[in-house]
Amino acid sequence: MALRHYTLDFNLSSPADCPSTVRGLQSIFQEQEMTETVHDTEGHGYLATFIGKNGRFLVFRVHSHGLVTLDLQCCEGDDIAQVENLLNALENKLSSILHGNIRRVKRLPALTRGAAVDRYWPTADGRLVEYDIDRVLYDEDSAYQNIKILHSQQFGNILILNGDVNLADSDLPYTQAIMGGGKENYAGKEVLILGGGDGGILAEAVKLKPKMITMVEISFHIAATHMKKTCGSVLDNLNGDCYQVLVEDCVPVLKKYVEEGKTFDYVINDLTAVPISTAPEEDSTWEFLRLILDLSIKVLRPTGKYFTQGNCVNLTEALTLYEEQLGRLSCPVYFSKEVVCVPSYMELWVFYTIWKK
Amino acid sequence: MALRHYTLDFNLSSPADCPSTVRGLQSIFQEQEMTETVHDTEGHGYLATFIGKNGRFLVFRVHSHGLVTLDLQCCEGDDIAQVENLLNALENKLSSILHGNIRRVKRLPALTRGAAVDRYWPTADGRLVEYDIDRVLYDEDSAYQNIKILHSQQFGNILILNGDVNLADSDLPYTQAIMGGGKENYAGKEVLILGGGDGGILAEAVKLKPKMITMVEISFHIAATHMKKTCGSVLDNLNGDCYQVLVEDCVPVLKKYVEEGKTFDYVINDLTAVPISTAPEEDSTWEFLRLILDLSIKVLRPTGKYFTQGNCVNLTEALTLYEEQLGRLSCPVYFSKEVVCVPSYMELWVFYTIWKK
Repeated sequence: MALRHYTLDFNLSSPADCPSTVRGLQSIFQEQEMTETVHDTEGHGYLATFIGKNGRFLVFRVHSHGLVTLDLQCCEGDDIAQVENLLNALENKLSSILHGNIRRVKRLPALTRGAAVDRYWPTADGRLVEYDIDRVLYDEDSAYQNIKILHSQQFGNILILNGDVNLADSDLPYTQAIMGGGKENYAGKEVLILGGGDGGILAEAVKLKPKMITMVEISFHIAATHMKKTCGSVLDNLNGDCYQVLVEDCVPVLKKYVEEGKTFDYVINDLTAVPISTAPEEDSTWEFLRLILDLSIKVLRPTGKYFTQGNCVNLTEALTLYEEQLGRLSCPVYFSKEVVCVPSYMELWVFYTIWKK
Repeated sequence: MALRHYTLDFNLSSPADCPSTVRGLQSIFQEQEMTETVHDTEGHGYLATFIGKNGRFLVFRVHSHGLVTLDLQCCEGDDIAQVENLLNALENKLSSILHGNIRRVKRLPALTRGAAVDRYWPTADGRLVEYDIDRVLYDEDSAYQNIKILHSQQFGNILILNGDVNLADSDLPYTQAIMGGGKENYAGKEVLILGGGDGGILAEAVKLKPKMITMVEISFHIAATHMKKTCGSVLDNLNGDCYQVLVEDCVPVLKKYVEEGKTFDYVINDLTAVPISTAPEEDSTWEFLRLILDLSIKVLRPTGKYFTQGNCVNLTEALTLYEEQLGRLSCPVYFSKEVVCVPSYMELWVFYTIWKK
């Protein structure tokens, strides 16, 4: 059961002549045998609604200041060609009635509402974007979060955690960026990956002949099954020639390493994005982030580097807050950042490199 | 004069109990002093509309098969916090009424309709995407097309031709791809650029010490002014140390080169994307495309390469049609293609390399 919702908007140079505009469309509404209701908007322009066949519903507004809007909703199973013909007829008629007064006509791709496959996954900076998603491969709540794997025609399988696009098969640039942007030599190095459940980092890192990679992640079975193009076969076993996966919470593991004096050349934090505010409900997220950071820097060799993702480049406040945290660690650090295009994100993303002063 | 349009949709496991759902929201509508109209949908579920203060308009539908949809429109100047509080109240109330029966709640970022700055520029494959556009820098009709330069927070200035996103300051990957993806040696070579009015290709090519670049483009003044980050100062003069810009239609220029026997190491066609269908109105576009291709291959040296963009990777039919054309040229050719992520496109794009058999 889904709804297709069409919008058609006319921006005008001067207010429309309302009676003639309304009259002009009457023949179309009559031909379609639509039942009209005119509403009293108490001085906010003309507003009429129409019910047509198959549950079609139309809203026609003539606003006071040079804007005419149309909404047309049709239900699943309706004849889409017929519906689009109706919208074409309305667009043509309005274009002719309003001729000479039109600054812009905007007809957006129809919104699909309530469909089995949800194609709308807003960006981190809150923009509406539609993906070319055609299949749901996995959709379950774990103990920690909702996990979805959706298939996109162009991006391949996409991992979505709690509604946020996390990583797609197309997103090698993400993995490369969070490994230092191709500027590091991993050969013979000891590497610690925090999180990284999609397996992308591990799969890339093992190719670079490191001495040993330790990945600490609770949840990886779903990626191992559904993100094969990203993780290859690296998650099929918890141990490989040069890697081990510890299925544990990373905090106690980090604390143990600090106690033991165990250190790494690279620590890669792929756990979570920078929180976008300091609102109370996010306090714990910031605290968690600081704790991980502090422990990570402690297990970093003097020449070592810590890599992590930040957030969308537009969320400048969140990024500034994060950078302020970096100034308050028990061990003083320098940092640099890079802006990277991650294909499936539809927004530019900031990645950080952090090292000891 | 703009309209904010909010949507809120509940997907249910089983059809909602309509009377109790409707009753449950009554207190909110009454508190908001909204005037209700219940419509006869002739068996297509429950549909009520509400007019509130400040021209607010709400549509509440309970569909027969487990879908509840809400639309809330408010006009410019309305109190957005108040409107979002109303929507929050409705979402909370519905969540409690429908508790245990909810499969998904979807509340999209509000659509802004009729605003001075239009943020919606659908992709080539017809998806709805919102850009972070905050300013209109240029918007005029030339003799050939509508030309817009819009400013995006993250992508910089974006050139939009006839409603299609063409190139943004962020899109060096486009320029690199249409120059051969960084695999070519331009030093000492002769290069012909067809189109390329944004100046990006010319600006990159001159850095590579070619012998001579000839760019044939009618319209470049707008880029020279508004796309400085892309074209630098290269379009400030029609002639440089190793380049000339011919302000002419490329067809007679190509014909003249063929007659004269003039040839090039690289021909870069940045004129237009591959048409998406063979519909009659696009016949002339395909003819134009074939003509350019044939002439371009004729002015290509035996070891030369021809580069061009194709279209969105999802438009497989259009791409296949194009590849069929390549088999019908007067001179037989080979081709290869590459899929590239162009940051501002929000979709993956195909680029072609073509060379003589």
